[in-house]
Amino acid sequence: MALGEFQLIERFFTRQRVKRDDVELGVGDDCALLRMPSDARLAVTMDTLVEGRHFPQATDPAALGHKALAVNLSDLAAMGAEPAWITLSLSLPSVDEAWLDAFAGGLFQLAEAHGVQLVGGDTVRGPLTITLQAHGFIPANQALRRDGARVGDLIYVTGTLGDAGAGLRIALGELSADGADGQFLRGRLDRPTPRVAWGLALRGLASAAIDVSDGLAADLGHILKASRVGATLKFADLPISDALCRRVGEAGARQFALTAGDDYELCFTAAPAQAEAIAALPFPCTPVGVIEAGEGLRVYGPDGHRMPVEQAGFDHFGASP
Amino acid sequence: MALGEFQLIERFFTRQRVKRDDVELGVGDDCALLRMPSDARLAVTMDTLVEGRHFPQATDPAALGHKALAVNLSDLAAMGAEPAWITLSLSLPSVDEAWLDAFAGGLFQLAEAHGVQLVGGDTVRGPLTITLQAHGFIPANQALRRDGARVGDLIYVTGTLGDAGAGLRIALGELSADGADGQFLRGRLDRPTPRVAWGLALRGLASAAIDVSDGLAADLGHILKASRVGATLKFADLPISDALCRRVGEAGARQFALTAGDDYELCFTAAPAQAEAIAALPFPCTPVGVIEAGEGLRVYGPDGHRMPVEQAGFDHFGASP
Repeated sequence: MALGEFQLIERFFTRQRVKRDDVELGVGDDCALLRMPSDARLAVTMDTLVEGRHFPQATDPAALGHKALAVNLSDLAAMGAEPAWITLSLSLPSVDEAWLDAFAGGLFQLAEAHGVQLVGGDTVRGPLTITLQAHGFIPANQALRRDGARVGDLIYVTGTLGDAGAGLRIALGELSADGADGQFLRGRLDRPTPRVAWGLALRGLASAAIDVSDGLAADLGHILKASRVGATLKFADLPISDALCRRVGEAGARQFALTAGDDYELCFTAAPAQAEAIAALPFPCTPVGVIEAGEGLRVYGPDGHRMPVEQAGFDHFGASP
Repeated sequence: MALGEFQLIERFFTRQRVKRDDVELGVGDDCALLRMPSDARLAVTMDTLVEGRHFPQATDPAALGHKALAVNLSDLAAMGAEPAWITLSLSLPSVDEAWLDAFAGGLFQLAEAHGVQLVGGDTVRGPLTITLQAHGFIPANQALRRDGARVGDLIYVTGTLGDAGAGLRIALGELSADGADGQFLRGRLDRPTPRVAWGLALRGLASAAIDVSDGLAADLGHILKASRVGATLKFADLPISDALCRRVGEAGARQFALTAGDDYELCFTAAPAQAEAIAALPFPCTPVGVIEAGEGLRVYGPDGHRMPVEQAGFDHFGASP
């Protein structure tokens, strides 16, 4: 027997363990009622994942629950926001309790890790589509915007880049899934780690930031456009994982690092005066280039020559890279 | 040539006229950045409309833009919240500029009427699905919740009920669309009026409130359940429009008023001591019953006998009425 909409929501989405003090009313009324810290700004972001477009059919629902939240937390991280609440719209072709159970499990595991509470949403029958909105806090004037990069700023990225791009090739059967390297790369695609703590630590240090969802070249391009500046990147400085290097070679790995998406690392800029403080952060931030006055993005290879850049990031309605 | 995702968003969704002072950053960064009034609570609500489920194929896109916002503003109204910001996730099978133009037009016309600004969202390729989240403000402890109804409270509804139910029958070809009555009823389905000003006026007067989306019996049932009380309704007191009465007769009209959904009027409860203040409000609120201790909903007909109630409201996964 089909479960009713309301029972469904209650059964799978009210058993979360996070109960925040600032949630006066969560799921179950016309609206959620939420209390903001005084003087904070509210940061909101919304992302939608469509089956067959953003993930293949029969994707592990636990990974999907994780990823739907991770991509939104990554947007908060890129802004320097502290995550607080989420809302979820779930369009499902049918009620599959095992699927819902796994999806909610993946979602809540990541939510708990960040102290995030689900406060509302909608559940409807339709093609499998997941829309999640995340809400976070930022003290006044401390947001990491895209438009703050200045000429002379250094360009950094967190962690390593390109892994998720190789993970996608594995998912498509174009690269081998074998071994620990294959598992690692696939995991970077399926279960990205939003760099929330990194975003918080970069308040007051970074001049601009964005998360790398469409590929470094494309996402850095958004910073350049918003800040009306240009940039030079050093190809040989792009941070890559050993696993990616072993699987596709060093040059291939750096090409993934430059143009492949879905890594959900942060790309940020900072004045050279902050370099010491950034180097002292308890997680790896690699300088990869510099902000310049001349518009556009220039990439220089190990031989000192300029390289062509495939700049087109992932675009749902345009031509995909 | 297909428009890129970002151009698409820019072209259709950044030309709104509302520019609120409390929006520090709107569309175009990783997150929107928003400023709350001090001491206010944030009310958030999210609703999803799926083609073929919540509206038929080839629905007028302007009406759809209106309705997607209206149903969310109605949730804010039912809470007594003042609307402020919206986010929109739009999943579209293809880029149809005429469709987008009309959809944005319908959305922004209603948004402007309420001073609401679109601050973010997502645009993806997929089956036509619209998810909208609305954000509003409520002073501390003034929210109209579902759980505040007390024994002895009067039950009210705003406006007239049942019109949208007849509008749906017209849309399905089961009732004639002819004449001014047909137009009026169809309009009540396609372009519902969220009772925002009414919700604000009911702060401090109503003890509980909900908007009538699934039908009065079902939605009042949510108040009764949350407040752990019961109720008696007088069938003959249900407010109905002349148009509905002419089209389906008085008894039929009241049956629509009791069980049909989509009217987006408010149903609220208030202590008898507030009756005079409510009667003095500049819009029609009709007393239709009383809150009682005995659980469940009882409906009494004009002859004084109890009537059977079809209580099942619209349920996306259960049996629909």
